[in-house]
Amino acid sequence: VNIEIINTGSELMLGRVLNSHQQWLCRQFADHGYTVNRQVAVDDSGPAIQQAVREAMAHADLILVTGGLGATSDDRTRQLIAQLLGRPLQEDSSVVTHIEQFFARRQRAMPLSTRVQAQVPGGAIVLMNAFGTAPGLMLDLPPRAGANRPGLLAMLPGPPRELRPMFASRVLPRVLNQFPRTEPFVCHTLRTTGLGESQVEEKIAEPLRALTEGGLELGYCARPGEVDVRFTARGANAQRLVDEAQRLARERLGDVVFGAEEELLEAVVVRLLAEHKQTVALAESCTGGLIAHRLTNVPGASAVLLAGLVTYSNEAKQKFLGVRPETLAAHGAVSEPVAREMAEGARAHTGADFAVAVTGIAGPSGGSAEKPVGTVFLALSTPTQTLALKQFNPWERETFKYVTSQQALNLLRRRLTPSERQSAVSAG
Amino acid sequence: VNIEIINTGSELMLGRVLNSHQQWLCRQFADHGYTVNRQVAVDDSGPAIQQAVREAMAHADLILVTGGLGATSDDRTRQLIAQLLGRPLQEDSSVVTHIEQFFARRQRAMPLSTRVQAQVPGGAIVLMNAFGTAPGLMLDLPPRAGANRPGLLAMLPGPPRELRPMFASRVLPRVLNQFPRTEPFVCHTLRTTGLGESQVEEKIAEPLRALTEGGLELGYCARPGEVDVRFTARGANAQRLVDEAQRLARERLGDVVFGAEEELLEAVVVRLLAEHKQTVALAESCTGGLIAHRLTNVPGASAVLLAGLVTYSNEAKQKFLGVRPETLAAHGAVSEPVAREMAEGARAHTGADFAVAVTGIAGPSGGSAEKPVGTVFLALSTPTQTLALKQFNPWERETFKYVTSQQALNLLRRRLTPSERQSAVSAG
Repeated sequence: VNIEIINTGSELMLGRVLNSHQQWLCRQFADHGYTVNRQVAVDDSGPAIQQAVREAMAHADLILVTGGLGATSDDRTRQLIAQLLGRPLQEDSSVVTHIEQFFARRQRAMPLSTRVQAQVPGGAIVLMNAFGTAPGLMLDLPPRAGANRPGLLAMLPGPPRELRPMFASRVLPRVLNQFPRTEPFVCHTLRTTGLGESQVEEKIAEPLRALTEGGLELGYCARPGEVDVRFTARGANAQRLVDEAQRLARERLGDVVFGAEEELLEAVVVRLLAEHKQTVALAESCTGGLIAHRLTNVPGASAVLLAGLVTYSNEAKQKFLGVRPETLAAHGAVSEPVAREMAEGARAHTGADFAVAVTGIAGPSGGSAEKPVGTVFLALSTPTQTLALKQFNPWERETFKYVTSQQALNLLRRRLTPSERQSAVSAG
Repeated sequence: VNIEIINTGSELMLGRVLNSHQQWLCRQFADHGYTVNRQVAVDDSGPAIQQAVREAMAHADLILVTGGLGATSDDRTRQLIAQLLGRPLQEDSSVVTHIEQFFARRQRAMPLSTRVQAQVPGGAIVLMNAFGTAPGLMLDLPPRAGANRPGLLAMLPGPPRELRPMFASRVLPRVLNQFPRTEPFVCHTLRTTGLGESQVEEKIAEPLRALTEGGLELGYCARPGEVDVRFTARGANAQRLVDEAQRLARERLGDVVFGAEEELLEAVVVRLLAEHKQTVALAESCTGGLIAHRLTNVPGASAVLLAGLVTYSNEAKQKFLGVRPETLAAHGAVSEPVAREMAEGARAHTGADFAVAVTGIAGPSGGSAEKPVGTVFLALSTPTQTLALKQFNPWERETFKYVTSQQALNLLRRRLTPSERQSAVSAG
């Protein structure tokens, strides 16, 4: 199956927004054993969109078009494609009802203009939008020249929070059904933190060589504070190859592996705390609330997170965490003793089982020869002891914050994984 | 001039990396008055790259190809394009010298494989790589059908730190010279929060009609909690059209406009606080630290943010903010009286000039008939009074948090904008 993605939007061609759809959709297809052959971005003018769709129809079986389904004057995808395919638009009453209910639930008047979103090309399947008003649309296409089966064109709304669930719940099942893979395909991802990409590769490439020679594909994806390892295989042996690769990799990587597939580190931490019926408090300086933000993204966080104290100023560190002025004066706010007192103070003031503290220099200013920008001290206070860790994260501000939050969550995770309790960090 | 960008790389088509070249290059062109007509991404196989270049040559005057110029087996762009254009590769001795020097300066042996990067198609201009070994290449193209001047094809290396300076120093000057702009081009963006996309359009479309009929282009870009309005125009009147459009839009939208171009709401808030030499404290329940995180993403936040208190539990609300148990018992944690006491408590406990508080139900569970998921109370405590605001944000958890943080930052921003001080919110 030949797949093409067409992203529409003048904001793309003017470089105003990053095209995150391309990566997300390509990733979804790859994870299900399909390869996207081509992605095209064009502005939202009529000729550009119609030309892109016309060209795609010449070589692709499956065409995804994103954007331009809203209610403003620059949303023309629906109309342009209906025209190109000769399938006139007609109002769909179920979409009108959906839009009316959407605004009624929000106790807002329905702007008249939004009704244009109920215009549907003849014969289209309506994909109701669970997170917005613009429906997605799926249309059968005649077989392209040289193909022996009909094609499919799907239009999806531009906002990622609307597009993603719609793709997963409606488009992907249809694709799996209409374009079945001819051979088994297995894909599995292990998520690691604490090692760089080449360090991960060094640990597993050699032990897995027999499997890769037997058809296993190994892929690495490095992001700040994280390296994913992807195992894929096709054919009759696919499941066996991937299972064996995973087992070997987990053995070699140990607790550097924090999860699998889409599971986030913060979700692992919330799950482990909930399983142990334990609670945590946070004392954040340089991460500025990001650790709390990440934990509270996880449904159920309220059962395990008692409080997060973002203590940017020395005064706040003293008042809310009980850090001693002498400690601050003797060692400076960015120091191991202050990190320890922050963690111990957060634990004492909240009654949590654990407290995690971070203090560091995010930059761009504030560094010194002794403590350059990127210097971080982390501490974890437990019912029995306080552990501390020094790190150096010389990245720009937002990456610094993210990597530091990853290290803080990982410090707690390793403590929560019973078998790893002793090897977690060097106790201080 | 018709411009096309071709991004090559299997990692793009597998969704493993985000295509940041597209946005960066499109933005560079837009800022210099050019519009990119189309961007295409293909994998690094021969047929895909050659087909993309062949198609681009049929309609584009200027073609940029990124990636595939390195020394590994999947770097084939140079060879494929040389073949397609019938310009055989030959070794360029200046490139060999550059590569040798590159390794010599780093006191590393030159891997034999890197010498392939000195292979240059006949007649190509070599763009020496200041940050790596692979040179970029520029080739004159014959005029495409219907065009009266020669075209240009540039190949640029994939790593952004190599591509960006090479584009700016070598490709852009050549483009400005070979394809001089025939007419002025102006682009400006206003950023708004507080209204939906259709509401923004309702307010300005009609007043701007004379301008759009006169050649102004209006674009809308909706993100959670934000709508950008983009004004573009070409020709002798471009500046006047965009200036006039902006003036009218600002008049109609009032303080719904929070900034322009790339400025983020959190950056506006930090800037206004710094200008007024004022400070803020945060009391976050349902946003879980996101407001603090956003503010601390802004360099200089430490001068204006005294503390952020993430008080998920009732106990934390009492202990760190002084919320009274009676208020919690009488009204529940998600209520206007609790939001007010949180804001007043945060201000009193930190000595900040302002404190912002939010308490709400992020979901997915925890809602009731009276207070469904998405219910939020916000409060702003100032030196003279406390304002409160009820909102309903029935989105999934992360969008709920983001939109609520946007409302909280906006509540503060409107208070900090002197002319809007009275109309900001209904005082309680």
